[in-house]
Amino acid sequence: TIDPGALWDDILTTARFGATPKGGLRRLALTEEDRQVRAWFTRTCTALGATVWTDTLGNQFARVSGTDASLPPIALGSHLDTQPTGGRFDGIIGVLGGIAVLRALRETKHRTRHPVEIVNWTNEEGSRFAPAMLASGVFAGVFTEDYARNRQDREGVSFGAALEAIGAIGEESCGAHGLAAYLELHIEQGPILEAEGCVIGTVTGVQGMRWYDVTVTGRDSHSGTTPMPLRADALQAAALLMTAVREIALAHAPEAVGTVGSVEVLPNSRNVVPGEVLFTVDFRDPRDETVMAMENAFRAKARAVAEEHGVTVEIRDIWDSPAVPFDRRLIDAVSESARELGLPAREIVSGAGHDAAYVARIVPTTMIFVPCAGGLSHNEEESATPDDVAAGANVLLRSLLKADAL
Amino acid sequence: TIDPGALWDDILTTARFGATPKGGLRRLALTEEDRQVRAWFTRTCTALGATVWTDTLGNQFARVSGTDASLPPIALGSHLDTQPTGGRFDGIIGVLGGIAVLRALRETKHRTRHPVEIVNWTNEEGSRFAPAMLASGVFAGVFTEDYARNRQDREGVSFGAALEAIGAIGEESCGAHGLAAYLELHIEQGPILEAEGCVIGTVTGVQGMRWYDVTVTGRDSHSGTTPMPLRADALQAAALLMTAVREIALAHAPEAVGTVGSVEVLPNSRNVVPGEVLFTVDFRDPRDETVMAMENAFRAKARAVAEEHGVTVEIRDIWDSPAVPFDRRLIDAVSESARELGLPAREIVSGAGHDAAYVARIVPTTMIFVPCAGGLSHNEEESATPDDVAAGANVLLRSLLKADAL
Ligand SMILES: NC(=O)NCCC(=O)O
Ligand SMILES: NC(=O)NCCC(=O)O
Repeated sequence: TIDPGALWDDILTTARFGATPKGGLRRLALTEEDRQVRAWFTRTCTALGATVWTDTLGNQFARVSGTDASLPPIALGSHLDTQPTGGRFDGIIGVLGGIAVLRALRETKHRTRHPVEIVNWTNEEGSRFAPAMLASGVFAGVFTEDYARNRQDREGVSFGAALEAIGAIGEESCGAHGLAAYLELHIEQGPILEAEGCVIGTVTGVQGMRWYDVTVTGRDSHSGTTPMPLRADALQAAALLMTAVREIALAHAPEAVGTVGSVEVLPNSRNVVPGEVLFTVDFRDPRDETVMAMENAFRAKARAVAEEHGVTVEIRDIWDSPAVPFDRRLIDAVSESARELGLPAREIVSGAGHDAAYVARIVPTTMIFVPCAGGLSHNEEESATPDDVAAGANVLLRSLLKADAL
Repeated sequence: TIDPGALWDDILTTARFGATPKGGLRRLALTEEDRQVRAWFTRTCTALGATVWTDTLGNQFARVSGTDASLPPIALGSHLDTQPTGGRFDGIIGVLGGIAVLRALRETKHRTRHPVEIVNWTNEEGSRFAPAMLASGVFAGVFTEDYARNRQDREGVSFGAALEAIGAIGEESCGAHGLAAYLELHIEQGPILEAEGCVIGTVTGVQGMRWYDVTVTGRDSHSGTTPMPLRADALQAAALLMTAVREIALAHAPEAVGTVGSVEVLPNSRNVVPGEVLFTVDFRDPRDETVMAMENAFRAKARAVAEEHGVTVEIRDIWDSPAVPFDRRLIDAVSESARELGLPAREIVSGAGHDAAYVARIVPTTMIFVPCAGGLSHNEEESATPDDVAAGANVLLRSLLKADAL
């Protein structure tokens, strides 16, 4: 079993890089804070006897050899970047859980057949650079390296320039080495495990998700002198479309979700009728047909609002990540590991995107969820108990050993 | 009569300070661009033989003496600051029209009884520092100097610090000298004069207006994993309140207007359900009771939305500027001047706030409007014809002479 104290210590240590006053983290991808936690990853894994390297998109790998040099590695990983007001567990326990497994293997001198590799994927959150899971997506062949390098943050800085700025570009071309299997430990980020008293979620797949950028263009005018009927108010039209996002999700209850997370208003002056509004839309459901139906409903609403309000509405597709099924043999390995450890478990579909969703396209993959308080994530108050995180890492260790024996 | 060519040249010259690629102006109060146009004001008025000085809040005065040194001056003025995407006429023609009057008096060697004073009031727009008409408000005793100095822009820079940064603080305490009358030439910023083929609007007063800052507080959470019923989505609640602003204004048709001009979302990440939204509200109507009724309707809606969406809504009063009637004798002087010049004119109530609205509290005051294309203002495409601007300046000159004789 893994050393729960050392794992919790690692959580406290990494929580220093980008710590916020409210006890959360602000460690956006490829910032100075990200550079610091990457250096910590290299130091820590090297000290555990692993060979550490970085690929051309900043993905970090730490490998220990197995008994059979002809076999590809089994990878354990997740990401160390966070949301602007993120927590100390999202992604992080997947990487630190892998490090805890490395530590356990080293202390018990256990040699697996396959090499074991811990991975820290670049820009999973998608907050600084959309879409999410960008570098694991390139690893899996979903995006090209050029596509990734040209993504821009809101200030216009490209992903490629940001990689360079923090010195995170390695020599191995992204995706150049193969994997035998991939396992990712993560907090659930939702309320189900906690509500049902489960410690382990055996993740059967990831729901479908689509992201859009919407631009509403009207006409700037004076807030005091422009009669209501003569306005082309981009914000009034946008506000109707924002409320439509929620209504469309509710119309596909209970599983569908729809979110407007980001808004920019121009010129953003209190006595100017806004001439332009940009906002984002995020639609998700376990069934791809439902996501598509939500998109169609939104496009229809956008046409109606544009006509009625005398504005134009442009909808740009930013991301389309269809629903992903995980590998049945690995799912069973996780279930069995939980059972052996006496941990209450249930199967669950992930509401969030994860690097595992892309890696699953080319490698047998699954995930292990542990509960987080109140299902709260993407929030500085995100929290998980030391016991649950340790339980998840123990299931990760056992699942690795089972995968190694398959 | 005034020299129309020299006036138009001044408009083209001042349009260089803060020029935008789209042909408009971005000359927010107390920025480097504002410093440049202030220096131009000083140079130009000094060359016309005026004594120029600045008061403690950056208001600029340029005075030429009259024949009776015991009389207080008649002031002509407006403002040289603009919106972030503003035009070349709003405020500007009031100051440059005054300068055109100075030039005409000088060239004809005409001496008025009263001294004549051209004024450039600081921070009329209210875009960088709310409320609008801040320094004319202090001049008129509506606000204290301390209140003005402590206003902050969105970056937290105070009005006092911004004044200091561009060296715009003079010695005369704001409001220390009295005026005999105040006349302000301005574009209408609305569609009425153009629609009715009038060149001159004889302004009888300014409608009532109130500004608010609204903060909606919910809870950040994950956009993919948080079921719709468990959300406390600050943006969905805010969007409903934004649409309510429009509906409330429409319910008080035809004169009422309601606007949300500025929005900020936190953390503003596309896969985070927003935990906090700040937005502004601007309600106006010629009747103060109607403005009050709109406020009450909005507060009731805010309570209902807060309850239904599990968020809190805080409404802060930022500005309350009741309806203002102008001075009947000066209104008549403007009407008569237009008639003498053969210019089609009508009486009109201003939908926009103006420095004249505050100065009117302590000094007999009125305004002269000229049309602008399509009624469009607070827009880089704002435009007025050389003929209409010159006609307005000629009415300003005649009205000054009539006021001087009263
Ligand atoms: N796990 C996680 O929060 N990933 C970010 C991508 C998403 O929005 O689902
Ligand atoms: N004239 C003008 O645009 N003033 C700004 C204050 C207002 O919003 O009415």
